[in-house]
Amino acid sequence: MPTLAAVKTPLYLKLARALEEQISRGVLRPGERIPSVRSFSRQQGVSISTVLEAFMWLENRGAIESRPQSGFFVRVPFAKSVPEPRFQTPAPRPAAFGAGAIVAEVLRSATDPASIPLGTACPDPELLPHHKLNAILRGIARRNRLHSSIYGPTQGVEALRRQIARRSLEYGCNFSPADIVVTTGAMEALNLCLRAVARAGDAIALESPTYFGVIEAVEALGMRCIEIPTHPREGMSLEFLADAIRKHRIKACVSITNGHNPLGYVLPDDYKKRLAELTAKHNVALIEDNIYGDLAFGASPPMVAKAFDRKGMVLLCSSFSKVLAPGFRVGWVHAGRYHAEVERLKFLNTVATPHLQQLVLAEYLESGGYDRYLTRLRIAFAEQVRMVSQAAAKYFPEGTRITRPDAGYLLWVELPKKVDAVELFRAAVAAHITIVPGTIFSTTGRFRNCIRISCGYRWSDTIDRALVTLGRLAAELARES
Amino acid sequence: MPTLAAVKTPLYLKLARALEEQISRGVLRPGERIPSVRSFSRQQGVSISTVLEAFMWLENRGAIESRPQSGFFVRVPFAKSVPEPRFQTPAPRPAAFGAGAIVAEVLRSATDPASIPLGTACPDPELLPHHKLNAILRGIARRNRLHSSIYGPTQGVEALRRQIARRSLEYGCNFSPADIVVTTGAMEALNLCLRAVARAGDAIALESPTYFGVIEAVEALGMRCIEIPTHPREGMSLEFLADAIRKHRIKACVSITNGHNPLGYVLPDDYKKRLAELTAKHNVALIEDNIYGDLAFGASPPMVAKAFDRKGMVLLCSSFSKVLAPGFRVGWVHAGRYHAEVERLKFLNTVATPHLQQLVLAEYLESGGYDRYLTRLRIAFAEQVRMVSQAAAKYFPEGTRITRPDAGYLLWVELPKKVDAVELFRAAVAAHITIVPGTIFSTTGRFRNCIRISCGYRWSDTIDRALVTLGRLAAELARES
Repeated sequence: MPTLAAVKTPLYLKLARALEEQISRGVLRPGERIPSVRSFSRQQGVSISTVLEAFMWLENRGAIESRPQSGFFVRVPFAKSVPEPRFQTPAPRPAAFGAGAIVAEVLRSATDPASIPLGTACPDPELLPHHKLNAILRGIARRNRLHSSIYGPTQGVEALRRQIARRSLEYGCNFSPADIVVTTGAMEALNLCLRAVARAGDAIALESPTYFGVIEAVEALGMRCIEIPTHPREGMSLEFLADAIRKHRIKACVSITNGHNPLGYVLPDDYKKRLAELTAKHNVALIEDNIYGDLAFGASPPMVAKAFDRKGMVLLCSSFSKVLAPGFRVGWVHAGRYHAEVERLKFLNTVATPHLQQLVLAEYLESGGYDRYLTRLRIAFAEQVRMVSQAAAKYFPEGTRITRPDAGYLLWVELPKKVDAVELFRAAVAAHITIVPGTIFSTTGRFRNCIRISCGYRWSDTIDRALVTLGRLAAELARES
Repeated sequence: MPTLAAVKTPLYLKLARALEEQISRGVLRPGERIPSVRSFSRQQGVSISTVLEAFMWLENRGAIESRPQSGFFVRVPFAKSVPEPRFQTPAPRPAAFGAGAIVAEVLRSATDPASIPLGTACPDPELLPHHKLNAILRGIARRNRLHSSIYGPTQGVEALRRQIARRSLEYGCNFSPADIVVTTGAMEALNLCLRAVARAGDAIALESPTYFGVIEAVEALGMRCIEIPTHPREGMSLEFLADAIRKHRIKACVSITNGHNPLGYVLPDDYKKRLAELTAKHNVALIEDNIYGDLAFGASPPMVAKAFDRKGMVLLCSSFSKVLAPGFRVGWVHAGRYHAEVERLKFLNTVATPHLQQLVLAEYLESGGYDRYLTRLRIAFAEQVRMVSQAAAKYFPEGTRITRPDAGYLLWVELPKKVDAVELFRAAVAAHITIVPGTIFSTTGRFRNCIRISCGYRWSDTIDRALVTLGRLAAELARES
């Protein structure tokens, strides 16, 4: 049986995690001052910039805070008493359990405006820069009076593709605007990629758990899901993946490398390199989803596996839905050697993505300030994740395990074995609280005692009360026999 | 061998066509006054409203014109000396001829801003109500400040679905807003319908010729195209269709019943009824495309086959791209019994269509004036079709045949046998004129001496000169051996 691969971690992260451990053990306590950057650097024999990176990572995660002219201080730690979920090897075989019907229930539950939204992976609308986007939009509608009257280019507006290419340097790539295809959100990008690299009947390797939309999209195209056991912090097991490639003639692998949905981890560069190499070696296309990449809590945006793509076999998908404007429905893909086929399929699927929103995003990104905004957004999400995580630790029944995300705003919660997440979901919906049951993150019926909680919305008493209710409902289910 | 079905024609249309024939035979000559409505009604023994309908049909087609206080007068007729294309039975078997590469060439040619656009089926941007749409858009962006910050509903904005349902009465239906799914253009609607009713490997019946996007979309989903011989005025042969259903286990039939692309015909109600009945009888889903329905030159919007749907097996697709705003990318579908599956696939394909544009269209349709605008638009297109048709009759080589569309702005031109349309297309592109070669409207390599000309743009000397050039290029190819 293959084991989980050893993972190389950058120096600043080792330092940061060591500090985090000290905080969680109570060696460093809430409110205490942390040694200065300079003394820390001397102490540990590492550069000042490494220490700074580590401190920024901890600050972004909400573990420490900087106070002007006084240095860094420990905040109430992440969710100190609750362990992370365990690595589970897969159930021996897929068991039909009707995930489709539950997915429909989950989507329906999201349309209740009266419910407290811990379900859908939406950012709080008020955190997003709608004022600025609207001002740009009105300006464009004035200047560009024919935008509604003409078909936009199938490939997407050039100005936006240029901005996407410009930012690609930050995560280790160097794209040309000509290589990008703009899509109607990342879901269209995923569909086009799957259709470009595989056909009905082909086997697609997926993380387990993974976003239920990925599973449903693969199955709706008549392709087969092969689930690869995935560690809640270290990602999909590359040994299991290599094994599956040998056994199942895998055509493509879908991986969320940064800000995994639902697990929240950011994988180290070294892992990404090995993933890209492993898939390329076996001529397996790697469809990489990076929609949460800009929301990583680290000091700088994490690399993507695409950065290690030597054969053009990594198809990198992303979107602006999680960071700027879910309502705009603008995503994109760099499809490497499959570019022409993806562009052809884009025409056949939706002809073109509305160009108005593309023009708005291009102007927003050109105008500067996106990085400063992103820093604020990441800190806000880290804070929200911390608050929900602490509350869940307090209110949820004993035996609960919770992830400690490196990016985004999703928590994966493993409840005591007896809790049926679908029952919990239904009880929560009846109490006007939405969550997502873990079962739909797999095709095999696994994760039946897990739920995904979104911390996209700003912390409030309402959310606190919702978590009290959820905890009570979970405890009731845990007691039943 | 099956023959073309006899077709029942409404009274006003018989009258109108009789008058049109008189005009084309020179019995009634350009500039002459037509007998008054009242005397005509007495003469023919039909009601005044029938005569009015016939006159309005002829006026919309540009054959006659009304002059205030003087009655109706004959205009220069449609394209009087040129016959319509002939009905062709199909080639015995599909022959691979690489349509895909030619489609890519055609799409590429459409991106040259310097070319005279007789290729893509675009309306003239200046004919569309962009001022009004932009004013509404700016208002919505002001009032509805969070539109960019939230995911819109997968099914589409309710206000727009209500407008779509309201207008459905005009073409013989009575939709509920709950039955509509809004899509990213009619192409997404077509894709979702195909995926809802069939799988890879299944056989889909198509008109021959039909819009190349339909053919490519069917093949990109791994489905098989079965081409049904289609009469340039009377539509797909229902006898051939019945035959194909028996032979090929057809899963679905795609039909453009109003304003066929490329043939331009509007099929009579009786035909639509028989088509809906035939497909329903054999449990074949009928995917009906009505994007040109609002551009029919007749007095009132033509019915759809969906109006005769008794089993919920007709999936009606349409969009606002040809009549209001191609750049908005808003289409929709009423999928009958496949509604839930289409909505599920909509989520998996693009999650939702941007709601800003949906809100704009809803407000535009609510505010009234759409019908008056449509009348002006139809008259403009009829005039453009007439001008291009006359010019082509003058400049194109002897033996040319041209359709006489009942709707929209597309002409299908059959050139002398020796003309290779792909060569003509390439020569035209080199001269900065875009057209679409007929070959890509079939999978069998047929229609190699046909081209589609779009008359979406307002008549101008530039278009006249482009047609002179096209005629010269065609004549050269006709002479070569």
